Amino acid sequence: MDRRKFFKNGSLFALGTSLLNPFDLSATQLNLDTLKKNKKAKNIIVVVSDGMSTGTLNMADLYLSRKTGTGSNWLQLYKESKISRALMDMASANSIVTDSSAASSSWGGGFRVNNGAVNVSPTGENHVPIWQKFKKAGKMAGCVTTVPITHATPAGFCVNSKTRKDQEGIADKYLELGFDIMMGGGNLYFSSEYRKDNRDMYQEFETAGYQVVKTREEMIAANNTKPILGVFADSGLPYTIDRNNSKELTQNTPTLGEMTQKAIDRMKDHPEGFVLQVEAGKVDWAAHGNDIAGLIYDQTAHDEAVKVAIDFAEKDNDTLVIITTDHGNSNPGVISGSKANDNFDSIQQYKHSNEWILNGFGKETSISQIKERIEYANNFGVTDEEAKLILSYYTDLKSEDGLYNARHLPFKVLGEIQKQHNSVGWISMHHSADYVELAMFGPGSDLLKPFIKNTDLHYLILEAAEVENKF
Amino acid sequence: MDRRKFFKNGSLFALGTSLLNPFDLSATQLNLDTLKKNKKAKNIIVVVSDGMSTGTLNMADLYLSRKTGTGSNWLQLYKESKISRALMDMASANSIVTDSSAASSSWGGGFRVNNGAVNVSPTGENHVPIWQKFKKAGKMAGCVTTVPITHATPAGFCVNSKTRKDQEGIADKYLELGFDIMMGGGNLYFSSEYRKDNRDMYQEFETAGYQVVKTREEMIAANNTKPILGVFADSGLPYTIDRNNSKELTQNTPTLGEMTQKAIDRMKDHPEGFVLQVEAGKVDWAAHGNDIAGLIYDQTAHDEAVKVAIDFAEKDNDTLVIITTDHGNSNPGVISGSKANDNFDSIQQYKHSNEWILNGFGKETSISQIKERIEYANNFGVTDEEAKLILSYYTDLKSEDGLYNARHLPFKVLGEIQKQHNSVGWISMHHSADYVELAMFGPGSDLLKPFIKNTDLHYLILEAAEVENKF
Repeated sequence: MDRRKFFKNGSLFALGTSLLNPFDLSATQLNLDTLKKNKKAKNIIVVVSDGMSTGTLNMADLYLSRKTGTGSNWLQLYKESKISRALMDMASANSIVTDSSAASSSWGGGFRVNNGAVNVSPTGENHVPIWQKFKKAGKMAGCVTTVPITHATPAGFCVNSKTRKDQEGIADKYLELGFDIMMGGGNLYFSSEYRKDNRDMYQEFETAGYQVVKTREEMIAANNTKPILGVFADSGLPYTIDRNNSKELTQNTPTLGEMTQKAIDRMKDHPEGFVLQVEAGKVDWAAHGNDIAGLIYDQTAHDEAVKVAIDFAEKDNDTLVIITTDHGNSNPGVISGSKANDNFDSIQQYKHSNEWILNGFGKETSISQIKERIEYANNFGVTDEEAKLILSYYTDLKSEDGLYNARHLPFKVLGEIQKQHNSVGWISMHHSADYVELAMFGPGSDLLKPFIKNTDLHYLILEAAEVENKF
Repeated sequence: MDRRKFFKNGSLFALGTSLLNPFDLSATQLNLDTLKKNKKAKNIIVVVSDGMSTGTLNMADLYLSRKTGTGSNWLQLYKESKISRALMDMASANSIVTDSSAASSSWGGGFRVNNGAVNVSPTGENHVPIWQKFKKAGKMAGCVTTVPITHATPAGFCVNSKTRKDQEGIADKYLELGFDIMMGGGNLYFSSEYRKDNRDMYQEFETAGYQVVKTREEMIAANNTKPILGVFADSGLPYTIDRNNSKELTQNTPTLGEMTQKAIDRMKDHPEGFVLQVEAGKVDWAAHGNDIAGLIYDQTAHDEAVKVAIDFAEKDNDTLVIITTDHGNSNPGVISGSKANDNFDSIQQYKHSNEWILNGFGKETSISQIKERIEYANNFGVTDEEAKLILSYYTDLKSEDGLYNARHLPFKVLGEIQKQHNSVGWISMHHSADYVELAMFGPGSDLLKPFIKNTDLHYLILEAAEVENKF
C-alpha cells in the first residue's frame, strides 16, 4: 500500500510540520484529521444492527429527537462530520436478498455464499473467518449479541458451518477456537438439558478456562483477565422495551451497551489489540414481527452500544469503529397523514413489545382480557371486532407463519391494527434487497468508498489493521 | 467565509505548488481535488427524483445492473468516489412527513413551511425563492419536469403561493418573473380552453418574448438565445415505459434527459452562469400508485438526466450538481423469497405502467379483455378471480382513493396482484418520513456535512455560488 508505506517511511513528521506553515487553522485541522485517519487500526469494533431498513434508523432517531430533544448517537456522528459513510450492496451468492448468515459471511469470509451457509462456498469450500485471522495475528477476539451467541451474525465472523441452523455445532466450534469473550442468548445450544447430544457445554467451557456467567451481576463481576462465556436466555434476550418494564429482567439481563462495555474491558489491555463484533440481533426479529416497540427500542439499544464503542475509540485513538446493518427488513416507515406526528409520538407511551402482548393470550383468554392487555401495552383501545380477530388465532385453526414466530401468533394482524394508531407501515415480514447504511470512525475509515460490495468490507478491515491476508 | 477568503487572497497558487514537493502522486491528486472543490460554483443544477425511497434508488440500480451489466449513473458516481453525500431530514413545519411543496420550499426559501404552502410561512410571511435570488444576482434560471411545470417542486424554487393547488396563479407568476426556460406538462394551467379565467397564457408568454414549444421537435428546434416555455401534456408527461412503447409518444414527448440538455444549452453561455432544477416528478406519482414499472423506468429517466448534468459539469468545471429526492414514498423494496431474483427480473418484461393498464378498462370490459391486457403489459396471467376483482371497480360502486387517482381506479389491488409475481412490496400509497439521500458533485460539494436539515441546503447553495443572502 503506497499510502501507508509513505507514512511508515518517516515522511509523516516532515509533512506534518511543513503543513503548519502556509495553512490557516482550519486547513491545518483538516490535515491533522487526515493524518489521524491514516494510522493503523489496532482494534476493530463492528456494531451491527441486524435487519435495519433505512426507516428503522430514521424512526429511532426521530423517536429520540422528539422524546428527548437529542437524536441518535449514530446520526450525531454524522452531524459532527466524524465519520466516513457508504452504501453497501449486501446480495448473497444465490439471492439479491441476503439472509444474515450469508451477509455476515460476506464480511467474515470475504466471499458471497448462499443464504443459510456460514463461510462455506456453494461448492463446499471453507473461507477462513476474519476473527480467526485476527486471532492468528495475535489479537483478542469476541462477539456480543442480543440473540443466541451461536446465531448467524456472530457465527459469520468466527466459524465455518454448512448451515446456520447447526447452532449446537457452532457452540462446539467456539469452544475449540477459544474466543476471548462470547456473550448473548442461546442456552438451548449450551445446556445439557436441551442439547441433542446432552453435552454440558458450560462445564466444558469452564474446564477450558472460561468464566461462565448467566446474569447481569455475574457478568459485571467476571474477571477481565480470563475468557468469558455469557448466556443470559434460552434463545434471544428479551426485547429492550420488555426488559425496561420488568424489574426482574432489568436485574438479570445486561443491555447490549453493558455487554459491549464488558467486552471492551475484557480485551482492551491486550498488547496486540482486539476485535469485537456487537450485534443488535432483535432489531431483525422485531421487523420480522412488524413489532414497532420491539424495533425502535432495540434500535436505541444498538445506539447505546454505538456510544460505548465510540467513547472508547475517542479516548483510545487506535480503534476503528464500523457501524452498519446486514440487510433491510420490512422497510418500515412513518406514513403521511394529518395525524402522523401524534400517531408516531404515541409509541412513546408503549410499554411492551407485540411479542409480550401476544404471548399473554391463549385459548381461554376473553375479549375483555385482550382489550385490557393491548390498552395497557399500547395505550389505545381495540374494538371488539379486532379483539375477536386476534382471539380467533388462539381458538380456531388460524395461524401466521414467520421466521421467529414458532407459536404462529397473529403478529401481522396486530401490526395492522397498530398502524391505524401509530402511522407506521411495513412492506412484508421479510428481508429486503435495499442497499444498506455503513459508517466508519477512526483509523482506516479513509479507506471507505461511497459505495461498496459487502465482501469489500472484509479486505478493508484487514487493510485498516495492516494484517496481511495470508492464512 | 474564512476558507474562501483564504483562497481568494492569493494563497491558492502558493499552496498548490508547496504541496507538489513533499507528496507522492496520490497525495497530490487528493489535494488538487480539494482545490477544485473549493472553487466558486458558477452554475447550479439540482436533479430531484420526487418521492424516491431508498428502495427506489436501489431497485433502479439493481434493475439496470441485472439487465445491462451496468448500474445507475447516480451510484456510479459513488463507486468512483466523485461525490459528497449526506442524509437529509425533510420534515415540514407541521409534519414529520413532508409534501412536495413544503419540501421544495425548504430548499427554495430556506424555511420550513406547512405542507401545501409554497414559500409562505405558517404566519403568512413570504420567503424569497432561491431562483429569484439567483436571477437578481445576474444568473439565468429555469426548471424542467415530467409533471406540470406549475407543480410543487419547480414552484418551490421560483414563486410564493399560499397553496400549491393554485397552479394557474403559479403560471401567471412565472410569466411576471421571466424565467429563462420552463418545460414540463401542465397545459391545463396555460390553455385558455381549460383555465378558469380563459387567459391564453401561451399568447401572453409569446408576447413577452418567449418561444412556446409543445412537441419534442419544436423543443429541439427552439432558438437557444431566447426564453423558452415548453408544455408537452395536459397534466404530467406520460410514464417513461409507456412513452418507450408508443411511437407517437416517443416522437412527440421529450425525455427528462432531453429537456435537461435543452435547458443547459439554452443557458450555458450566459456570462454570469445559470441555475437549473430538474425534476423526475412521476417517480412520486408512480409510488402513489404502487406502480412498479412506472416507478423503475421513471427513476432510470431521472438517472439519464443525472448523466446529462454530470457530463456537462465534468467538462465545464464550474458547475455544482446536486442529486437528491424530496421525501420517501411507499418505501418499496424487493422482498426475500426463493424466487426473488426471477420475480424481480420479470419486471424487465413489463411493457406498460399500471396507469396504462387500468385506463384501458371500463364498464363494458370483459374478464378476458382484462386478462389479455395485463398479460400483454406484464407478461403474466391473472386468475379469473383477480380479473373479476379488478372489473368490480368499474362495474360496481367500489373505488380507491389516491392523490393522482382521479378516476378511483384499483391501483392498490393491481399492485397486490403483481407483488406475487415481482416480489416488490409497499408500505402504503403515501409519502414516508425517511431521511433522504443527497449527493453533490463539483465546486461547493466540500461544504456538505453527512447529515443536514432540508433548509441547510438553501444556504449551502448560496454559499457555494458565493451569492450573498441579502434580498
